[in-house]
Amino acid sequence: MDVELITVGDELLLGFTIDTNAAHLARELAAIGIGIRRRGTVGDVAEDIATAVREALDRTGAVITTGGLGPTSDDLTKPSIAAIFGRGMRRDEEHVAWMEQRWQQRFGRKMPESNRAQAMLPEGARKLTNNHGSAPGIWLEDDRGRWVAMLPGVPREMRGMLADTLLPILQQRVSRDGHPTVVRSRTLRTTGVAESLLADQIDPIRESLGPISLAYLPAPDGVDLRLTIRGVDAARADGILDAASSVIRDRLGRSIYAEGSTDLAEVVLDRCRALHLTIAVAESCTGGLLGARLTAIPGSSDVVLGGIIAYANDVKRDLLGVDQQQLDAHGAVSEEVVRQMAEGARARLGASIGIGITGIAGPGGGTPEKPVGTVWVALAHEQETRALQLRLIGDRDEVRRRATQSVLELVRRTLSEKD
Amino acid sequence: MDVELITVGDELLLGFTIDTNAAHLARELAAIGIGIRRRGTVGDVAEDIATAVREALDRTGAVITTGGLGPTSDDLTKPSIAAIFGRGMRRDEEHVAWMEQRWQQRFGRKMPESNRAQAMLPEGARKLTNNHGSAPGIWLEDDRGRWVAMLPGVPREMRGMLADTLLPILQQRVSRDGHPTVVRSRTLRTTGVAESLLADQIDPIRESLGPISLAYLPAPDGVDLRLTIRGVDAARADGILDAASSVIRDRLGRSIYAEGSTDLAEVVLDRCRALHLTIAVAESCTGGLLGARLTAIPGSSDVVLGGIIAYANDVKRDLLGVDQQQLDAHGAVSEEVVRQMAEGARARLGASIGIGITGIAGPGGGTPEKPVGTVWVALAHEQETRALQLRLIGDRDEVRRRATQSVLELVRRTLSEKD
Repeated sequence: MDVELITVGDELLLGFTIDTNAAHLARELAAIGIGIRRRGTVGDVAEDIATAVREALDRTGAVITTGGLGPTSDDLTKPSIAAIFGRGMRRDEEHVAWMEQRWQQRFGRKMPESNRAQAMLPEGARKLTNNHGSAPGIWLEDDRGRWVAMLPGVPREMRGMLADTLLPILQQRVSRDGHPTVVRSRTLRTTGVAESLLADQIDPIRESLGPISLAYLPAPDGVDLRLTIRGVDAARADGILDAASSVIRDRLGRSIYAEGSTDLAEVVLDRCRALHLTIAVAESCTGGLLGARLTAIPGSSDVVLGGIIAYANDVKRDLLGVDQQQLDAHGAVSEEVVRQMAEGARARLGASIGIGITGIAGPGGGTPEKPVGTVWVALAHEQETRALQLRLIGDRDEVRRRATQSVLELVRRTLSEKD
Repeated sequence: MDVELITVGDELLLGFTIDTNAAHLARELAAIGIGIRRRGTVGDVAEDIATAVREALDRTGAVITTGGLGPTSDDLTKPSIAAIFGRGMRRDEEHVAWMEQRWQQRFGRKMPESNRAQAMLPEGARKLTNNHGSAPGIWLEDDRGRWVAMLPGVPREMRGMLADTLLPILQQRVSRDGHPTVVRSRTLRTTGVAESLLADQIDPIRESLGPISLAYLPAPDGVDLRLTIRGVDAARADGILDAASSVIRDRLGRSIYAEGSTDLAEVVLDRCRALHLTIAVAESCTGGLLGARLTAIPGSSDVVLGGIIAYANDVKRDLLGVDQQQLDAHGAVSEEVVRQMAEGARARLGASIGIGITGIAGPGGGTPEKPVGTVWVALAHEQETRALQLRLIGDRDEVRRRATQSVLELVRRTLSEKD
């Protein structure tokens, strides 16, 4: 079963609100085997809502809308769609009574008049219970079985109604239509390898991956590979994805650091935990970003001791023990300094692993020899300190983000040699 | 002028990626008086791309797409749209040469074969320069003046190409079409004041704000007020927004910390710079987040010296000089400890201002006396150290984010007393 999704609202169309409902709906529907074929957004304009829904109904006969159910005059979804079905609007007195009671109980006051509009429903509509707000959702269906489900736009209400009411209805329809099929995906994460190089490695074995679709998703942190299978039942989908993942893992080896949405920092922490290692950081251009990323993960305190944000050179010297002569001779962005930073963090905090980062994040500070994006990272562990020079692209945020990703990858690769 | 927007990609349709490009495009286009009438998303399916673009062209004659320009086989935007215009594809040898040179210079190696696909262009297409990646954008126009602009899906590349290349082209078209009206917005930022309290203050003066629409936008960092005016020319729009902002500023006073998208950290840095003050941080539960946020701002190095990430208690003691007795008696999340952290950071780094943060970010670690969300922050400056206990709501990320926002606001308010 395929549905189309239409999100309604000027705020969405004007770009002031990012549409997170659409993504949530897509994931939830995929899990029960319903695909979203197409998605659209229109503003709070009755004619545009009606046109978009009519076109979508003609294509798939199954439409979910979000937004435009509120009490204010710009909420036009219900009457626009009722008109498509040739239905009038009527007031649902039961719902008025429920809302009046709710206002009294919740807020200890009389319901504002403007809320009455929320009880106006298309004739023949089925109400979808809203356990998180006062606007009911609506299910409207014609005698040919074509339907529109209207959900609220407020994410919390939409999510609640979807889980409590709409998904069970759709689940039933999917089962009724026979053996249910699903859409399942799996993500394999890589970092430090260009999209086109991954493609060059995978192209020769593409055929052996079976009937999956394969997407390359490049981002500043690396390229994710997403494998998707649709149109088969759940058990078969998992089997096909297992087989395909295994072929790709064999091919790419250590380039894959995780599955799903797992952050590289989490992989590094798990590895350190297993080896009983602790981490201390020494950050210059990233200014705490690596520490923040590591400690964003619950339970990181058994690995991360802390670190020193050595933004000024005096701090590198006084708190990390970097030689003033090295700073003078090579500059703060140099192999000599990053090694002493990593070693200094390790020694001062008494950690197993010291990590150092120093670089030029931009936009200013670049020179012909050390352009913006020049970053040195280092890892001090046991008897050895490894340093690596990076030439990173992107703006200040991206250079900083890529620098943390690169040094985490250096740690992961170094520790994986210990297998 | 109205355009339609079509974003392409399975990952968008499947809900794995939130579509931020659409919102960015909408805002940038609105600023030059172009409205987005409707927006759609389709997967990586040639037929769906072609159908959606053809329908949109029939409605508005002006379409912008994002996504599907990469080198891999799931990138189908170009040929699908070329077919609508009845154009074939040809290889742009100039672009191949440019990419080969770029690979050699940037990565010191030969360009992978799969990148060649990025040089395939529809016949008669105009290239849109990509200063942030290797896929060119494409402008395709027919003899009736109907056009499609194809932009990459990677946000950084899309944003760069929009600003560098597409907006100037569209700006020219809009001017050619006669006297343009615009949609302009202005945002006033507040933090630490509830939405309903702001509304209570503004309601009595709402009438005097003129013909603007006013939205309250609550977020973890505070409530933004957005003023929007539409349907007038640029000069008049600015005048109306200036007047309304000024009325609101008079009313709310110091509650407004910035306009637009300016981060509170930037406000604090500017204030410190003006007063010739330097900052050192001591972070426990935020693990470097405050340092990262301050140093995210270009030019922060003349204010921020660095700091100490004191995640483990030993680090609080050894590197910040916190008394072991205080740690034992009151715990790491206490007024006594946060004061010593702020003072320790100030003394050890020789800064004018020391900032301390210690708390329980969750999900674990809470107790009945100190539940998750309990955070102590402190500011050491001159002879005085101010400490503040916070009870923050939200998950781990939100608690950490809110803690940095709260301490920055403490610094801002403290320094503003010096006026």
